[in-house]
Amino acid sequence: MSFAPPDFSAARFAKSPDAKFIPAPADGVLPEKFFSTTNLPTYVRVKGQWRMPREPRMDASLVLASDGEVWVREMRRIKKGDPVAVGYAEDGSEGIFVHSEAFLGEAAEGEFKFMTSEVSREKPIDYAQMARLLIDERARGGYPIWVCGPALVHSRARADMTWFIANGFVGALLAGNAVGVHDIEASIFSTTLGMTSGGEATSGGHGLHMRAINQVRAAGSIEAAVAKGIVKDGIMHACVTHKVPYVLCGSIRDDGPLPGVYTEMAAAQDAMKAHTVKATMAILIATALHAIATGNMLPAFVTGKDGSVRELPTICVDSSEFVVSKLKDRGTHQAFGVVTNAQDFMHILRLYVERELDARKGAPK
Amino acid sequence: MSFAPPDFSAARFAKSPDAKFIPAPADGVLPEKFFSTTNLPTYVRVKGQWRMPREPRMDASLVLASDGEVWVREMRRIKKGDPVAVGYAEDGSEGIFVHSEAFLGEAAEGEFKFMTSEVSREKPIDYAQMARLLIDERARGGYPIWVCGPALVHSRARADMTWFIANGFVGALLAGNAVGVHDIEASIFSTTLGMTSGGEATSGGHGLHMRAINQVRAAGSIEAAVAKGIVKDGIMHACVTHKVPYVLCGSIRDDGPLPGVYTEMAAAQDAMKAHTVKATMAILIATALHAIATGNMLPAFVTGKDGSVRELPTICVDSSEFVVSKLKDRGTHQAFGVVTNAQDFMHILRLYVERELDARKGAPK
Amino acid sequence: MSFAPPDFSAARFAKSPDAKFIPAPADGVLPEKFFSTTNLPTYVRVKGQWRMPREPRMDASLVLASDGEVWVREMRRIKKGDPVAVGYAEDGSEGIFVHSEAFLGEAAEGEFKFMTSEVSREKPIDYAQMARLLIDERARGGYPIWVCGPALVHSRARADMTWFIANGFVGALLAGNAVGVHDIEASIFSTTLGMTSGGEATSGGHGLHMRAINQVRAAGSIEAAVAKGIVKDGIMHACVTHKVPYVLCGSIRDDGPLPGVYTEMAAAQDAMKAHTVKATMAILIATALHAIATGNMLPAFVTGKDGSVRELPTICVDSSEFVVSKLKDRGTHQAFGVVTNAQDFMHILRLYVERELDARKGAPK
Amino acid sequence: MSFAPPDFSAARFAKSPDAKFIPAPADGVLPEKFFSTTNLPTYVRVKGQWRMPREPRMDASLVLASDGEVWVREMRRIKKGDPVAVGYAEDGSEGIFVHSEAFLGEAAEGEFKFMTSEVSREKPIDYAQMARLLIDERARGGYPIWVCGPALVHSRARADMTWFIANGFVGALLAGNAVGVHDIEASIFSTTLGMTSGGEATSGGHGLHMRAINQVRAAGSIEAAVAKGIVKDGIMHACVTHKVPYVLCGSIRDDGPLPGVYTEMAAAQDAMKAHTVKATMAILIATALHAIATGNMLPAFVTGKDGSVRELPTICVDSSEFVVSKLKDRGTHQAFGVVTNAQDFMHILRLYVERELDARKGAPK
Repeated sequence: MSFAPPDFSAARFAKSPDAKFIPAPADGVLPEKFFSTTNLPTYVRVKGQWRMPREPRMDASLVLASDGEVWVREMRRIKKGDPVAVGYAEDGSEGIFVHSEAFLGEAAEGEFKFMTSEVSREKPIDYAQMARLLIDERARGGYPIWVCGPALVHSRARADMTWFIANGFVGALLAGNAVGVHDIEASIFSTTLGMTSGGEATSGGHGLHMRAINQVRAAGSIEAAVAKGIVKDGIMHACVTHKVPYVLCGSIRDDGPLPGVYTEMAAAQDAMKAHTVKATMAILIATALHAIATGNMLPAFVTGKDGSVRELPTICVDSSEFVVSKLKDRGTHQAFGVVTNAQDFMHILRLYVERELDARKGAPK
Repeated sequence: MSFAPPDFSAARFAKSPDAKFIPAPADGVLPEKFFSTTNLPTYVRVKGQWRMPREPRMDASLVLASDGEVWVREMRRIKKGDPVAVGYAEDGSEGIFVHSEAFLGEAAEGEFKFMTSEVSREKPIDYAQMARLLIDERARGGYPIWVCGPALVHSRARADMTWFIANGFVGALLAGNAVGVHDIEASIFSTTLGMTSGGEATSGGHGLHMRAINQVRAAGSIEAAVAKGIVKDGIMHACVTHKVPYVLCGSIRDDGPLPGVYTEMAAAQDAMKAHTVKATMAILIATALHAIATGNMLPAFVTGKDGSVRELPTICVDSSEFVVSKLKDRGTHQAFGVVTNAQDFMHILRLYVERELDARKGAPK
Repeated sequence: MSFAPPDFSAARFAKSPDAKFIPAPADGVLPEKFFSTTNLPTYVRVKGQWRMPREPRMDASLVLASDGEVWVREMRRIKKGDPVAVGYAEDGSEGIFVHSEAFLGEAAEGEFKFMTSEVSREKPIDYAQMARLLIDERARGGYPIWVCGPALVHSRARADMTWFIANGFVGALLAGNAVGVHDIEASIFSTTLGMTSGGEATSGGHGLHMRAINQVRAAGSIEAAVAKGIVKDGIMHACVTHKVPYVLCGSIRDDGPLPGVYTEMAAAQDAMKAHTVKATMAILIATALHAIATGNMLPAFVTGKDGSVRELPTICVDSSEFVVSKLKDRGTHQAFGVVTNAQDFMHILRLYVERELDARKGAPK
Repeated sequence: MSFAPPDFSAARFAKSPDAKFIPAPADGVLPEKFFSTTNLPTYVRVKGQWRMPREPRMDASLVLASDGEVWVREMRRIKKGDPVAVGYAEDGSEGIFVHSEAFLGEAAEGEFKFMTSEVSREKPIDYAQMARLLIDERARGGYPIWVCGPALVHSRARADMTWFIANGFVGALLAGNAVGVHDIEASIFSTTLGMTSGGEATSGGHGLHMRAINQVRAAGSIEAAVAKGIVKDGIMHACVTHKVPYVLCGSIRDDGPLPGVYTEMAAAQDAMKAHTVKATMAILIATALHAIATGNMLPAFVTGKDGSVRELPTICVDSSEFVVSKLKDRGTHQAFGVVTNAQDFMHILRLYVERELDARKGAPK
């Protein structure tokens, strides 16, 4: 694609002044309001003429040569007294015009910016806001659904997940057989897939998840295994004892499965949808399969009693940007991505929720 | 954020008809032109009234109940004879309106779509187009700069890179000390970091790259090492013998370094910029540091002699989406991302260039 | 953990000579056989005494000071005439002992090496060997199972996959509903999830995969859709026309599903296992779920008629190291990891198979 | 590779009994001590003969058929009364032998295990142990070096990093120009690369890091900028006010740079090495370049005054497994990998250190 230069005879440029140049105060130092360049086509008005600076690049300054030519110069190459362009405006109103529309299109709202990607490990995570959301949902009787993958269990975020269930922050838990299996394996044998909480593979450990499944199958159901004291703590235990509904869906990689796992996929989807239609918030942690399955069923919005709609807050946590992008590529545009691991996410989120609860307790009425 | 329902008394809805419903031809089968749902707020006109369907989700159909209620139903749950909404339009012109603006904003041009992410391993790579670009650049005397990381050498894409240099597709090569070191190690010892081309770590191999550096230092320069027959093939050999300019920049992780490596960073940047100002195309392969450094210096455009500007084609190849996103987050918006490994990229690109050259040879004038 | 110094009175050190030092030939240049250091505890024999060099680090040399002290020195800091230790042996037989056992354990066979990780994008991929394996399997009547994820279809490796099926390299194809859906969507509409082969999201495209499913459901089966000319090319078409068995397994994220998809997970596992028990080779491409499911069922070995066993060649292709590591962490230790994208893998593998076939044709008998 | 069956006439098998089979207590339920299969060649002793079970796979049980054949059977396919093999031993001592050596080699210590990979996001992170290490180091006057990338600043872990510096846990800080730049940008403008702490790109923000650099260059040094009140808080401020030594190394991607940045790479390496030679612990966060550079210089051990050596604790934090694996592939075998993001790591580590300090305060002497 080729673009013609802007039409500087247009009305919008009629009042543009010449760019202003100020001498650099010292070697390698720019005047305070220096114009900081971008990598886009740029035009500088000098003696009534719009000129393109030479050697364009971003993060540099504009220096006027004695012959009227404008050069893009790195800060470190500036000499004391060099005439340096000043101004922040990129629309020509201070004599400098950055022709950004054609290049950036609407995505960037016509302005050169850094850090515009939607999902990145380099973006800060606002735990305080998520904590407030969760507490508000609980207060208003919302129905937050939590969707988890087994990494949550392997990474030993069980205790934190259990805390959220026990404290009323979970409307329903949607997961796969593996979450149930390794949670129960951890309760019975203190391992997950034979790995200790210290991350060590144990001798003979490869059969422990099978033994856990077998004990629950012998008991007849997860509920029975809890009642009989076989399963004493953890996520499934908390769901059973706190009467939080859960759906465990099967897949082709399942061992067992545990009793109660939906092994027929139409039935499994129906069971999930019974909760997604009620959801007022969704938290998807460390699972591509279940996150995308839930995203498929989840409206992007919640409808109020007055017919107004609001976005359904959807948080997707994964160690890589890929899962969140994939979820968005499957149409769950509203997902807010958090790139971190499950253990840390759960731990900090709980901490912030506890802090916010303390703060609200102490607040005057 | 909360949104009011659309104002259906507005002019744009004046001509909207009732939605049309057609009986499903069989259990689990929809009429051919069925309306396929999204996860966005949707309104269906039934007997003059706009209704929101119940149980909204994407990838489903709209079924009219006898009481006038509209339900969102999965294909598999459809019964023969169910009245199913038909039509493709989402703007109300066929009686169905998807209220997408508020939710999607401009990024999606106001339309629900899948696969809108910019960079993804799930996107096809158009090697044919890249091959044509490269051949066109060569034909018109362009100046494509290639920027490479050491993974290109470790993965044994040396032969393909050498071919591009030898055949006039490389204006200049920008890389780090490690590319030079392991390329020369491969020429002298057939290993890179002591690893064979079969991917095996060799006994005593950890010192081989140091011995390679030492031989070049003893020779005095890379050029001298080529002249003396110490370096017999590969990337650096091709640059020297084909007189393709190269810049090797230093970093804190360098061993040696090789003679000729720029170890002062201002000088290194100046040496790179001597090529970026001439660049008409940029190919960045398997390097975060050098890709971002080059991106910093590279204009997003090429200026023609007539003052018109065109986008500077910038291809960024990496095994993960992250590096490309990071590059874009640092302002190199024009980068086109290819998510693959260096070996495969180079191999296929060369194959397509060879095919295109053959095709052009055979073409009638 | 703390380790005592080695017992240098032990028999193994009885014949150790003093280390040999040779003057550096020039500033910044080492004698040819210089000893290249590691980061492990190292002992140098000087005048009968074992000394630890000062300032230890890897990739450096050992210089003897006039007071008998040994210093670790970077190549660039060497001055002409500095006495530099020479020798390659790290076992004390040339007067230098690297105490590696305690630190590295068995994993590294007691030797300091680079590039020892099992799975890395920096490792070369030996397509020639994979091509020979596939051709040998075909020649001997083996049963290679191919397990694919939808990225293979999105990335437009359909044509290559189709070629492998048509040419007898596929014993059975194991995949999910999505592979079938998007393959058939590509055949009917030339899109996958509404994305063109150029990677662009299309207007109205979000419903195309649903329309593809609907057409096959209306036809009654994939076989019927092929027979009726609805599905004219691609992976499923090739399986049907070349009578290559396939298994499509369901999951909770499925739309439709296509007729013939196993939606009950026990039945799905049984259907997969009917092929895994016959497998003599496995190629797993761009799928975590199906790769791990197959790995669960797959023996690590093939048993010959004489009772001898050989490793079952298992190739796992993914864009990230994570899936391969996860597969190994689930016990499929024999998996060989290829870190690249599906499109490129398929394209190059086919190319190498074609070349090898040509080479074998031309070979004298 | 092909392996002969084990020699069962060998002495080690002389005392092997027949395998013991026990009836399954119910459909789909195994006897408690059931033998859990692996995917490796397995031999079961039945009536004095060693037999290979049919249809081998992992995570299943062994069932004896009436004709003496042994079948591998999934738990769900077991019928009440099926004779199921019991025992945990895989060495033949209970009549079942798993021929693992040939297949697994030394890496797995000859035993089939799950979760043996070295670095994985699925492994739990032991923050308590890291906290104890840090406090112990401070107590004994150790010299922990911290090596950070700019993601630490972008993700707003500045406050936590500042806390560690202020409280005596940092011997020296090694970083690049970008860490200094964005830390100071955050202090002056509350943005990093123009992004707010809420993760939003700001209008006009692309120049803010350049303005921050310019202010420090105008002041003459970072120390002067702190003294003049230009830089009021953050990482660099803490280093200056708490007299914690820091090294900022340059690279080709640097803007500015800040005064005091080492721009010559040999000098930069020397400046880093002045700290690595004193290091008793190393924490590498969110940086490939600086982590590998530091790893190159860092011994794998610390030498005590008595000549004993202990491993130098080296923690490497990154969002992907790749950086840690790459570090190990460059010889820093001792690195312990933590796969998470910088913000969360810093936050939780500080929390655990504070808790441990509180606990120690309260402890009786």
